[in-house]
Amino acid sequence: MTTLNNYEYYQQRINNFLTVQLDKLKVNDERLLAAMRYGLLIGGKRMRPYLAYTTGEALGADLHDIDAIAASIECIHAYSLIHDDLPAMDDDDLRRGQPTCHKAFDEATAILAGDSLQTLAFDIIANHKFSQNAQNKQVELIRQLINAAGYQGMCGGQALDLAATNSEVDIASLEKIHSLKTGALLQASVLMAAECVVDIKAEHKAALAEFSQHIGLAYQVQDDIIDITSTEEQLGKPAGSDVAANKSTYPALLGLQAAKDKAENLFQQALQALATLPYNTQSLADFATFIVKRNH
Amino acid sequence: MTTLNNYEYYQQRINNFLTVQLDKLKVNDERLLAAMRYGLLIGGKRMRPYLAYTTGEALGADLHDIDAIAASIECIHAYSLIHDDLPAMDDDDLRRGQPTCHKAFDEATAILAGDSLQTLAFDIIANHKFSQNAQNKQVELIRQLINAAGYQGMCGGQALDLAATNSEVDIASLEKIHSLKTGALLQASVLMAAECVVDIKAEHKAALAEFSQHIGLAYQVQDDIIDITSTEEQLGKPAGSDVAANKSTYPALLGLQAAKDKAENLFQQALQALATLPYNTQSLADFATFIVKRNH
Repeated sequence: MTTLNNYEYYQQRINNFLTVQLDKLKVNDERLLAAMRYGLLIGGKRMRPYLAYTTGEALGADLHDIDAIAASIECIHAYSLIHDDLPAMDDDDLRRGQPTCHKAFDEATAILAGDSLQTLAFDIIANHKFSQNAQNKQVELIRQLINAAGYQGMCGGQALDLAATNSEVDIASLEKIHSLKTGALLQASVLMAAECVVDIKAEHKAALAEFSQHIGLAYQVQDDIIDITSTEEQLGKPAGSDVAANKSTYPALLGLQAAKDKAENLFQQALQALATLPYNTQSLADFATFIVKRNH
Repeated sequence: MTTLNNYEYYQQRINNFLTVQLDKLKVNDERLLAAMRYGLLIGGKRMRPYLAYTTGEALGADLHDIDAIAASIECIHAYSLIHDDLPAMDDDDLRRGQPTCHKAFDEATAILAGDSLQTLAFDIIANHKFSQNAQNKQVELIRQLINAAGYQGMCGGQALDLAATNSEVDIASLEKIHSLKTGALLQASVLMAAECVVDIKAEHKAALAEFSQHIGLAYQVQDDIIDITSTEEQLGKPAGSDVAANKSTYPALLGLQAAKDKAENLFQQALQALATLPYNTQSLADFATFIVKRNH
């Protein structure tokens, strides 16, 4: 990850900001708060926050505004992982090399921790002191987060993914699943950050939408590739878990080489979208490179 | 319920409005949407929507604004019931005389239906066309819903309730559990409706906060009472389920008569709070009466 510009800085920044958000909560049930903290702060590459920050930086947004964008999206991501790991869903014991939330605590607490983290995501945006750039954008930002997170976004994608397990789907269905399940939140990281830029043009938002759509899909294709080419040690969870879970993947549908070609193709399309923007987008191009070159 | 003013009208109104909200969603996974519909529309007394509407009516709010308030709160309530009924939580097979969501569908779908209904709650407020009275209130309304629903409200109360199961808690702890688990959303039904009234005075909001706090607690005391005094047929779920689940209840802690006295006392305090308001609050008084007189 060290090739990403300011990566460690932004990772530290979001961890600090998330810690402050949790510390603000009045203690009701300590165990529930501990489970929320565990799910939100134990490791995590912070890809979505990084993407939000680096987009904001490239476009000249106020990074204090991006704190709330990045944190709200990471709360949604964290809640989805906690729920996805539950026995009734993917039934995973390990996440980021550590026991999953329901293993470290219990199922009931994990369900409630996920529920509370979803609420916290909206809390962070609704209660953030945005700069003048974005202070009238709270409702619009909440709308974008809703679209990315709910039935029409991530939750819908997870349901389609569960429905597709144990059955072979075609490539169009697989793309729909991933554009909702993974792509929507990655795209929101870019577009919500762009929303905090004063007077950003519609055509530039459209180019950023295209960029983020391509890298969102590339991210998932690469995820599928590394699931079968990496080791458990690299992944922090068992390798080959998609195959073991009878999930449709790009390598399974296309073959490994064609999946790699697809990732490369998406990468090139992402770069083309960036090239139309009148901003210095080198760090976003680097992010796209990182997405398709990473091996864990 | 027929003693409540306009009860059938408001029940029909919220059911229609909720149906429209679900119909607006672009179909992704039909099974998930069906589970959301099931959890949201199958029966339910619609107490919270009724309370929001009748508050809005008493205070002269635009009822089109209250549609969104009532619907968002009911989505939070419905999601919480779906998750609370899960095997890892209260493990209930019946709700409103019908199979619970995870019985009618499956656990994974029920988890996702709850998650998506939480998002839908915020969706409804963020995307509603409010009247001029309330059009600048969306962020404030979302904040109030967050406080009622999340870690500092309903979710925190549910966690405290789970922690208290199988152990005897004192009356102060029991009140805290219920003020969060049940009271927060009932109070939000009143206060969010009041927020849609132009120039409502702080002292009147305070009186409504007091009223709703008392009836919220009275609701729970009465719920505990009817759990041991009503039949399965009246309840639509097994009677005595609190006792069977080793839950602390007001009758268990205070004795049945003292619990009844407490409900009556809370009822009187609620009426006193209403008496300070310069509105015709008869329908709110009737609601308070209903709360403590109902037997199912």
